[in-house]
Amino acid sequence: MTSRDDRKATDADRVVISVDAMGGDRGPAAVVAGIAASATKNPQIHFILHGPEAELEKLVAKKKGLPERVTLKNAEGVVSMDDKPSQVMRRGKGTSMWSALESVRDGDATVAVSCGNTGALMALSMIRLRKLPGVNRPAIAILWPSRNPQGFNVMLDVGADIRADAQDLLQYAHMGASYARNGLHLDRPRVGLLNVGTEEHKGRAELKEAHDLIRASADSGSYDFVGFVEGGDIPGRRCDVIVTDGFTGNVALKTGEGTASLIGDLLKEAFAYSPLSRIASLLALTSLSRLKKRIDPRRVNGGVFLGLNGTVVKSHGSADATGISAAVKLAFQLAETGFGERLAARVATVLDETDPPGVASGDAAAQDAAGQKDIN
Amino acid sequence: MTSRDDRKATDADRVVISVDAMGGDRGPAAVVAGIAASATKNPQIHFILHGPEAELEKLVAKKKGLPERVTLKNAEGVVSMDDKPSQVMRRGKGTSMWSALESVRDGDATVAVSCGNTGALMALSMIRLRKLPGVNRPAIAILWPSRNPQGFNVMLDVGADIRADAQDLLQYAHMGASYARNGLHLDRPRVGLLNVGTEEHKGRAELKEAHDLIRASADSGSYDFVGFVEGGDIPGRRCDVIVTDGFTGNVALKTGEGTASLIGDLLKEAFAYSPLSRIASLLALTSLSRLKKRIDPRRVNGGVFLGLNGTVVKSHGSADATGISAAVKLAFQLAETGFGERLAARVATVLDETDPPGVASGDAAAQDAAGQKDIN
Repeated sequence: MTSRDDRKATDADRVVISVDAMGGDRGPAAVVAGIAASATKNPQIHFILHGPEAELEKLVAKKKGLPERVTLKNAEGVVSMDDKPSQVMRRGKGTSMWSALESVRDGDATVAVSCGNTGALMALSMIRLRKLPGVNRPAIAILWPSRNPQGFNVMLDVGADIRADAQDLLQYAHMGASYARNGLHLDRPRVGLLNVGTEEHKGRAELKEAHDLIRASADSGSYDFVGFVEGGDIPGRRCDVIVTDGFTGNVALKTGEGTASLIGDLLKEAFAYSPLSRIASLLALTSLSRLKKRIDPRRVNGGVFLGLNGTVVKSHGSADATGISAAVKLAFQLAETGFGERLAARVATVLDETDPPGVASGDAAAQDAAGQKDIN
Repeated sequence: MTSRDDRKATDADRVVISVDAMGGDRGPAAVVAGIAASATKNPQIHFILHGPEAELEKLVAKKKGLPERVTLKNAEGVVSMDDKPSQVMRRGKGTSMWSALESVRDGDATVAVSCGNTGALMALSMIRLRKLPGVNRPAIAILWPSRNPQGFNVMLDVGADIRADAQDLLQYAHMGASYARNGLHLDRPRVGLLNVGTEEHKGRAELKEAHDLIRASADSGSYDFVGFVEGGDIPGRRCDVIVTDGFTGNVALKTGEGTASLIGDLLKEAFAYSPLSRIASLLALTSLSRLKKRIDPRRVNGGVFLGLNGTVVKSHGSADATGISAAVKLAFQLAETGFGERLAARVATVLDETDPPGVASGDAAAQDAAGQKDIN
């Protein structure tokens, strides 16, 4: 799953990222500008870029030093934001999104990046990369600006699936903890389960069941379980990983983004109100831009699909070059740490412990993975 | 339900608000300071204040002009933040919270205000005030700062019940629209149903059913239905009323509050960073305090319990005098517009139309209410 592209490798440390150039709101020019920025900053990265070859070739040629870092893969079809996932699953072959996933499936790249239609990307990822043994529902994890020293918390699922039972939530806890270890460098992440109160008697039945499963599995999962947490803890310091179903997680994510964006606009209005406040905003420019950088959604751009045979980073549909570059940076970090293999090993451990009905715990792949050393 | 306290009334316009002095995090002194502020601003308000009489008498005596505006009602028991709703339902008699609701039940006050334990307050409200005919689950509605001209949107349910079926969501739409008409002065509020996408095929089964029910009922409910909305629309301008179940609504509310609070703290840090930024913050003081006032949660303090025979305003547990005063202001507005009667009439109309199983549409109370003119 994470084998390097040995045929073309000229450098043992080279990391290959597969990038879908199409399907984002700003078109392939923004994507090429983003990967160009990443290529300048990081000499290890090489790209496989998927889309209409003639068009992409021209865009890449304009960026100095980029052509020798990019392998183009022609794909004329484009998945649009309006396409339904079910249609894309049937007719998605030949699209740049499909092609980007194929490079990961074939082992030519370690991580795929796309800013296209989320539902379609998840659907295609499920059929092309397939779920890890023991994972019933893959999840999308994001990084949320927080009061913790690492600056961000992990939250999942933010919309891969609108349902999650107790067993799914347990897998999310393990996958989220693994992501926090590899993405945020936390040895023993603190995991919280999202609910409407912190008392153990509160909330829906599946949450109480998940509470007990996640608690019982904390040692083998190398995380600490802090119990139920509330919406205010998502940007807070009580835990590093927030576990929830994809419906609740998606609403929370969009509510947070909407609130931050409203405050940003009101702040702009406040500073434009009078001549004095306009002078003040000039003086405060550095402070404000530092704040903006800290909470700018473009700089933490990238939901990660977890629970598949391969890692997929979903960038915001509206991402510009800065956003794409952030998504590529995240993809690089995950590829470099061998995150995909480590996550698979973690999930296999849970599988061995809990032995959920319908999945054989003697599954060869799972045992292989569980046998690996230094899982993270 | 909204009858004035005629025995003691010296002024026909007098509005009596029943206030629970105990159970908030800051104790009765904050509550008395809050009602004193409201009394100064509004000569029509009279209070019935519930709690340990000796203690309250001293606090009230300290505020000039307040004693003649307050009737004390002795209640020695206090519901604490840790009490379970089920315990309070059995043993809550004699508490200040119970007593505050009794004044509304007996018709001595129009609206009750409490900053105590939310779950206990809802449980006591259910058994003492009882649900309106046709309402299966009451809801808590809040005002959320938004981009709309009125400055706020209504969201419900934010935590009265963790479940809601399609029929409940339909009632929430009617109750929320009625609140928006009376609380925000919108003739024809736009109602949206919270989901993870705006396409009609998305989301859980009960949401699709609710979508169709709410759409079909728009004309009789005097609202416009904009269909599914997302988390980003809660502070947005697409609709005025956001309908959701109490689990999702509670998570969204707390996520929004947590995000706003994090940004506020980061803003403070940014302005404290350098001497130049500290000068800037002095110059920008007016602008910043204008912004703070706009999004200060204390100034929109008060969740309203909807669907009961009587109106209850739940203030934040941590409310200070400013927060209490805002909750009293909201209670006054709702009392003055006859909101309780209007809401009951609206709910009865839905009941007549949809005739849900288990509730006779010939119910006398419902027909009386539906027969009223000028429902809002």
